[in-house]
Amino acid sequence: MSSIAVRNIARPDPAVVDALARFGVATLHEALGRTGLMDTAIRPIYSGAALCGPALTVLTHPGDNWMLHVAAELLRPGDVLVIACSAPNGDGMFGELLATSYKARGAKGLVSDTGVRDVKAISALGFPVFARHISAKGTVKATPGSVNVPVVCAGMLVNPGDVVAADDDGVVVIPRDRAAELAKAAQAREDKEAATRQRLAAGELGLDLYGMREALAKAGLRYID
Amino acid sequence: MSSIAVRNIARPDPAVVDALARFGVATLHEALGRTGLMDTAIRPIYSGAALCGPALTVLTHPGDNWMLHVAAELLRPGDVLVIACSAPNGDGMFGELLATSYKARGAKGLVSDTGVRDVKAISALGFPVFARHISAKGTVKATPGSVNVPVVCAGMLVNPGDVVAADDDGVVVIPRDRAAELAKAAQAREDKEAATRQRLAAGELGLDLYGMREALAKAGLRYID
Amino acid sequence: MSSIAVRNIARPDPAVVDALARFGVATLHEALGRTGLMDTAIRPIYSGAALCGPALTVLTHPGDNWMLHVAAELLRPGDVLVIACSAPNGDGMFGELLATSYKARGAKGLVSDTGVRDVKAISALGFPVFARHISAKGTVKATPGSVNVPVVCAGMLVNPGDVVAADDDGVVVIPRDRAAELAKAAQAREDKEAATRQRLAAGELGLDLYGMREALAKAGLRYID
Amino acid sequence: MSSIAVRNIARPDPAVVDALARFGVATLHEALGRTGLMDTAIRPIYSGAALCGPALTVLTHPGDNWMLHVAAELLRPGDVLVIACSAPNGDGMFGELLATSYKARGAKGLVSDTGVRDVKAISALGFPVFARHISAKGTVKATPGSVNVPVVCAGMLVNPGDVVAADDDGVVVIPRDRAAELAKAAQAREDKEAATRQRLAAGELGLDLYGMREALAKAGLRYID
Amino acid sequence: MSSIAVRNIARPDPAVVDALARFGVATLHEALGRTGLMDTAIRPIYSGAALCGPALTVLTHPGDNWMLHVAAELLRPGDVLVIACSAPNGDGMFGELLATSYKARGAKGLVSDTGVRDVKAISALGFPVFARHISAKGTVKATPGSVNVPVVCAGMLVNPGDVVAADDDGVVVIPRDRAAELAKAAQAREDKEAATRQRLAAGELGLDLYGMREALAKAGLRYID
Amino acid sequence: MSSIAVRNIARPDPAVVDALARFGVATLHEALGRTGLMDTAIRPIYSGAALCGPALTVLTHPGDNWMLHVAAELLRPGDVLVIACSAPNGDGMFGELLATSYKARGAKGLVSDTGVRDVKAISALGFPVFARHISAKGTVKATPGSVNVPVVCAGMLVNPGDVVAADDDGVVVIPRDRAAELAKAAQAREDKEAATRQRLAAGELGLDLYGMREALAKAGLRYID
Repeated sequence: MSSIAVRNIARPDPAVVDALARFGVATLHEALGRTGLMDTAIRPIYSGAALCGPALTVLTHPGDNWMLHVAAELLRPGDVLVIACSAPNGDGMFGELLATSYKARGAKGLVSDTGVRDVKAISALGFPVFARHISAKGTVKATPGSVNVPVVCAGMLVNPGDVVAADDDGVVVIPRDRAAELAKAAQAREDKEAATRQRLAAGELGLDLYGMREALAKAGLRYID
Repeated sequence: MSSIAVRNIARPDPAVVDALARFGVATLHEALGRTGLMDTAIRPIYSGAALCGPALTVLTHPGDNWMLHVAAELLRPGDVLVIACSAPNGDGMFGELLATSYKARGAKGLVSDTGVRDVKAISALGFPVFARHISAKGTVKATPGSVNVPVVCAGMLVNPGDVVAADDDGVVVIPRDRAAELAKAAQAREDKEAATRQRLAAGELGLDLYGMREALAKAGLRYID
Repeated sequence: MSSIAVRNIARPDPAVVDALARFGVATLHEALGRTGLMDTAIRPIYSGAALCGPALTVLTHPGDNWMLHVAAELLRPGDVLVIACSAPNGDGMFGELLATSYKARGAKGLVSDTGVRDVKAISALGFPVFARHISAKGTVKATPGSVNVPVVCAGMLVNPGDVVAADDDGVVVIPRDRAAELAKAAQAREDKEAATRQRLAAGELGLDLYGMREALAKAGLRYID
Repeated sequence: MSSIAVRNIARPDPAVVDALARFGVATLHEALGRTGLMDTAIRPIYSGAALCGPALTVLTHPGDNWMLHVAAELLRPGDVLVIACSAPNGDGMFGELLATSYKARGAKGLVSDTGVRDVKAISALGFPVFARHISAKGTVKATPGSVNVPVVCAGMLVNPGDVVAADDDGVVVIPRDRAAELAKAAQAREDKEAATRQRLAAGELGLDLYGMREALAKAGLRYID
Repeated sequence: MSSIAVRNIARPDPAVVDALARFGVATLHEALGRTGLMDTAIRPIYSGAALCGPALTVLTHPGDNWMLHVAAELLRPGDVLVIACSAPNGDGMFGELLATSYKARGAKGLVSDTGVRDVKAISALGFPVFARHISAKGTVKATPGSVNVPVVCAGMLVNPGDVVAADDDGVVVIPRDRAAELAKAAQAREDKEAATRQRLAAGELGLDLYGMREALAKAGLRYID
Repeated sequence: MSSIAVRNIARPDPAVVDALARFGVATLHEALGRTGLMDTAIRPIYSGAALCGPALTVLTHPGDNWMLHVAAELLRPGDVLVIACSAPNGDGMFGELLATSYKARGAKGLVSDTGVRDVKAISALGFPVFARHISAKGTVKATPGSVNVPVVCAGMLVNPGDVVAADDDGVVVIPRDRAAELAKAAQAREDKEAATRQRLAAGELGLDLYGMREALAKAGLRYID
């Protein structure tokens, strides 16, 4: 199995990433036509963690975190590390030392289909991490994988430079060439929701606000007293 | 499949609900003879969430939250929404906008056998939610289900107007016609526990306090030095 | 099935336990040659819970917590209760009253392969608990098990007097006769990591710090621009 | 918790049960408007097992199969035993001896939300069993439950006398008062499918047979060469 | 979300597919450098099922099998249907009628990340099916997805025309442009294994046959009597 | 982590093993006082597989099957290989070639807490295998583990030379020094069951045969007509 590390990847316009970072994952996922959501088993390791940035992808092998060191050199400030693995594995591949290194070099956070450890120290650093597993078990450095190749992480294809956004609701992958369009769609959705929220907070019903009564009757709903 | 929405349901005496709300789920479950506990996979979306109130039941179909809007109109202040689904589904059927609407209309919280989203916003609202899944994935409004019919939620039968109580220990369902009797049984249990707690805190042993030594010896326990 | 309770067990030197308590589980697990980690399904019931102490082991039967009362008498200040079960079971065997009793008698915390309840009250007590399940369901007192026999808890063999340490990263079991040696190995590891952490925080790369570049090239890694 | 055993329950017309027994579970589930399907974790213990008959319901407690002996006396030839439990439990509550007894008294099979054992012997008897768990672990006879009360089994409400049908596709519950109507609906569905099957086997396309092309175009499907 | 159906895709040379079909999945996975294996939760619905052919990919939405009818027209004899879904879903999207249609049009089998039903009838047809779920629950035809776009199925990226092979050991995806090279590598591996198998069957030890003794000693293995 | 292979272990009397082999796992587990049952997630890879013999234990590391070759030399005819792993792992560590080697050297079968592959070929060989996972993924030979040390397999402690028995109902571990006594207890149980089976097959009720009616009444069971 060949092992490569791609130094230069195309990243989206930083202004677009900043625009996307203002929205929650649920809004971005809606704006994407409900595509791009990773497996919901990926959860934040501390409540309130959130991130948004271009993906620097890492393909590892089970029980081996060697490529996470290769990634440290290739990451650019603002990047989000996306860790995939060639087979299901829950080992604690990522911990306090790598978090310290990644943070020092400007990374925005990490999303991993495998395991992490040093939860307390990483939470104290305020480095946002989303992972499938938490495990104290460490890893070896014996089999090289790849950096910045397309990977499948938590059931989603991630290309290097795609935008990855994560919060308490999950993780969404936004194809790089749709990032700009998405930021606009998300804003439009949010604008619309702001008005709706106010009316609902005042006690108005969604049935009226969205005009659902006729459609429900046509679909067969009967009210009974 | 017929789709109905029942407008008026029998609810328990509000004073009884208030009495029940003072107890934890573990106490209520004991007082119920250890019945009525939902599947333990239903968890609070924020630590410390708790609710108690008559159930307004909603039967949905996978990936479709249309009936949650119908429910908004039928709920009465103090109600707890109980969301069941005709097949296993983890989509984020309930989010910030519906939470805003339900809170505005006086609901006490929501228990869902499916998924929810907008965790951060709902937590900020202080609207207690217990769910099987968290997912950013939204839903359509295409197939009507029913409101205020008996449903099975997380393995438990819930009739409209049954009292549902939930906290960090889980979710329990109290049949409406047993609610008043339960409040008394729970109080009796709590009174007894208060005295026990004080004696245990002072270092007394349960073995002596509960008089277990003889029964243990009879059951075959041998001490070895 | 015979039921015994062993009154006196060999415990490690308290100074050694104090020394071990200063390290995180990930560090201890590394120092142990990556052995001794319990199944990662055992999680703290509140964020930040941590414990370290000699194991007082309890073998229970499903749905029966009788032996937890026997254990209360046999525990010594500083002990960690380790609860195993003769078959998989998620009932809430341990709750506020037992926590009050154990705390009053000096226990450092509890690790359970079954379930616990009264999460809110136990968290308020500040009594560290790690468990596989949370369930409001109580238990009977009908079948005696054993105290201070070797048990398998979450896939790991625990002998009475072994040191058990737990934090947000998981639970590790340290054989009693290796405890002293472990404390030294963990300290050596931590000393080394402190220096590494500082260099990584300053932006230095692990690739250089650990001298990995040549090994990676030999293993076949190719860089592409 | 009260313990009752109801001797006489209303059962559906045997001719209706015979009519329902000719259909597969998928067909019955469709005819029911896609309701009534138990959790898909309930699987046959041998390939090809199938059953159909009125439910004789048994509510047990974890690790206790006492009520299965009470049920043996109350069952009528043609009945299907439906085993529920007051809390999740995987013990082998049902084995060769009970299967021998039930078969001798005319039962058609068993559906259990808990565990079974003696898989080889039961398969040799040809007694159809569907269960959530397989476990060699036996049970005690200490706490009485109930027979012929409404139970929740694998997420579905089952009333005594409801028809339960099971095959390799799962288990479906048919309310007793809808059984006759269901048999007709299932037959109509099957008649229609027979013709469709023949045309599809001849290579005709569902797109044409069901007239889907226009609806797909309207829904936005574009063909690309 | 756009919905497209691609009519023409590049397929590998049929002679290469025939060559690959002679090998088991474990051999192909080894020859691929241990990449391409789908999540092991995908299992055959009957023992001994096996398939090999170019992937015709179908992207569905939860609870909706409309695109499986579109796929029936676009498949070519020898194709393997690969069903992905935009969110986790276990409904029985594929059953006897579609199996009849697909078989009539020459498909070699189906791999699904969702659910299937009519297990008995499909097994009788001898149409190989591998799926994550078995469920009697049917689906609607309301939301169009896509055919012959890249999909992620069971954690693996599948491009239309990639070769998919499956047997009792699992499912492997072979990129189309590596298919010819793979057939050769697999044959070389199988030739080598045939000789090894004969020597092991005669009682020779792998330790000697593979010359492992020195390496084991160097790695620290000590023998004890 | 030290790596050792123990050449000589104490095994039980072969006549005792033969005696135990005549009983099913459920009977042995009962005779053992309901202890010794492995996690029920360990299942036979083909229906009807069964084994009984002294354990030759192997401790592996995730993704590494090197020690399985060391074990091949140390096994004696009649042994059962018991594979444990230092961390959860589902890789296919054991396949056709090792099965060929083990069978040639007289092993009775294998029980693994990790994964196996080549299901079809091993089934054809008639070599009984029980495993937690099935996966086509192969393993490396890089890190030595140990042979014939005490291991925890599927939650149970197994000492080398303990008797391991497995069939469709699960896997049970019998301590070597209790093997002879167990064979007698199992025979006594079976003798008793034979008479019971005959009476139940003739339609007699367990209620009468076991004399349960009085105890049930005392426990509170009420019959209702």
